[in-house]
Amino acid sequence: MAALDAAGEFETIARLLRPLAHPDYARNLADDVAVLPFRAGYDLVLTKDAIVEGVHFLPDDPLETVAQKLLRVNLSDLAAKGAEPFGYLLACHWSPRCGWPEREAFAAGLKADQGSFGIHLLGGDTVATPGPASFSITMLGWVPKGRAVSRAGARPGDLVFVTGTIGDGWLGLQAARGLLTLEPERIAALVAHYRTPMPRVVFAGTVRDLATASVDVSDGLVADLGHVAAASGVGIEIDLERIPVSAAGQAWLDGRVDLEAALEQLCTGGDDYEIALTVRPSDEAALRREADRRHLRVSQIGRVAAGQGVTARLAGRPIEIRKNGWTHD
Amino acid sequence: MAALDAAGEFETIARLLRPLAHPDYARNLADDVAVLPFRAGYDLVLTKDAIVEGVHFLPDDPLETVAQKLLRVNLSDLAAKGAEPFGYLLACHWSPRCGWPEREAFAAGLKADQGSFGIHLLGGDTVATPGPASFSITMLGWVPKGRAVSRAGARPGDLVFVTGTIGDGWLGLQAARGLLTLEPERIAALVAHYRTPMPRVVFAGTVRDLATASVDVSDGLVADLGHVAAASGVGIEIDLERIPVSAAGQAWLDGRVDLEAALEQLCTGGDDYEIALTVRPSDEAALRREADRRHLRVSQIGRVAAGQGVTARLAGRPIEIRKNGWTHD
Repeated sequence: MAALDAAGEFETIARLLRPLAHPDYARNLADDVAVLPFRAGYDLVLTKDAIVEGVHFLPDDPLETVAQKLLRVNLSDLAAKGAEPFGYLLACHWSPRCGWPEREAFAAGLKADQGSFGIHLLGGDTVATPGPASFSITMLGWVPKGRAVSRAGARPGDLVFVTGTIGDGWLGLQAARGLLTLEPERIAALVAHYRTPMPRVVFAGTVRDLATASVDVSDGLVADLGHVAAASGVGIEIDLERIPVSAAGQAWLDGRVDLEAALEQLCTGGDDYEIALTVRPSDEAALRREADRRHLRVSQIGRVAAGQGVTARLAGRPIEIRKNGWTHD
Repeated sequence: MAALDAAGEFETIARLLRPLAHPDYARNLADDVAVLPFRAGYDLVLTKDAIVEGVHFLPDDPLETVAQKLLRVNLSDLAAKGAEPFGYLLACHWSPRCGWPEREAFAAGLKADQGSFGIHLLGGDTVATPGPASFSITMLGWVPKGRAVSRAGARPGDLVFVTGTIGDGWLGLQAARGLLTLEPERIAALVAHYRTPMPRVVFAGTVRDLATASVDVSDGLVADLGHVAAASGVGIEIDLERIPVSAAGQAWLDGRVDLEAALEQLCTGGDDYEIALTVRPSDEAALRREADRRHLRVSQIGRVAAGQGVTARLAGRPIEIRKNGWTHD
């Protein structure tokens, strides 16, 4: 199919992507396909997320972190299902802005995260578009046979936990757009969180062993818990004062007049890439122990009840959540 | 991640895509992931191709055929490797042009081809872009363990075959652009070939059993045979007068003054989605028999020799091929 491009498909593949290829399965990116042997006792878990310039990343985000974010949003989906990642297929829709230095930066971002997360490139496609640039990844992982965690297993009485902190993704987007007034190091921390969120890959095994249901927090905490509530046929109650926030998030909250509206914003902003999970009360101690061993914060933010949907309380008082998280279409 | 869209991600998934989901592996498109049990005795084959409006399809191509072409270019890659397709993940980057009727048409195209090729949707993502629209698919198939055909197995003395006819993809693009003067039924046949090429899925088993090397013809016959020659460390000689052309292609050729230049154009135009393969001379009869059983045309167009690269002859005289097929970046 026809479109010449200054930086060149073959050159991009040969010089930038081939060094990232899986040594066994990618056929050196020279055969249009990856060929993957069966792994006895495991299921294959696949997820696919796409990102678009101006929609999911900002036009002046460095392509190195764009590549990392692309990998990480997909890794986050696997972690929430208890799967261990091993490789990915990549489609790059390069815009005219993506010259050779930008592609080098993109490949450097991929390379850095391949090392961090133990994954390799399996194949893909690279095409030109008049713009905006966009990218998609199909990420593959393994999970012991029949053990992938679903959204459907939450039961009344279960406790609701979340890893890390909530709201930094949304605050980071505001910071990257120059819309926040905070100390420079707070701004830098939030922008870094927005550009390179940390998927909870190290917690996947614990989620698999202990969660009755789980989801990664990408659309927004309330919306994603809403998915769990709907799939499980239960209600989920959260206490807004228990929502874990970062130091930068707390600094931002301290400057708000309307605490309720501010907390609601953090719970619906999305782009967190934490894991929200439900566990039986008898597993709480094990969950906290496994989190401590990994120096990972986990916070109980609510409980599962009979009913439907997500209800929020602040100091025991019911709060109406007006926004249900972003629709990221 | 943030972008509201008139037609809505959730609505698109619930009403248009969920009915297409694989009954066992796709988790009803409600869990961000597909979970796939492995199949004993088989390898998994994966390929990923992307298409962009204005680059790989025309802005006035119906979205029904855009969806079919997207599936088919990926199915063609699997067929050339001897793999049997079973499912795919889909990323839709909808532009503002893609309202509800266009999405319905796109889903109708997917549905029709799912029936034709025995495949199901496994998962994916749907995002908004200011435009142009683009789409990518990761297609999955099975091949008996260790039996995926590579590009690297061609040996001197092997014969070079191609399925179907060559040149209709390029001619179809010219026809769709209104650049060809031919009878209306010829124009219609060529446009149909451009919009909905026929991947040779029915021939995958034969390719697996008989081909020493194979490739699908997407970049252009000469370029794709060049990939086989390079990977196999051999030379490939083709006879331009043996290149199979359709009735419409012959009608176009009959109107050319420079036959050599015209044949060269057909051999480098790309977008054919036929399979080019090399076989041992002792397997020629079996190949022709299997093709006949499937009412599929196969043509011997050349042979493998010591050396490197692709050389072409017309009536025994060497021809210099100036273009090496499109770079589809």
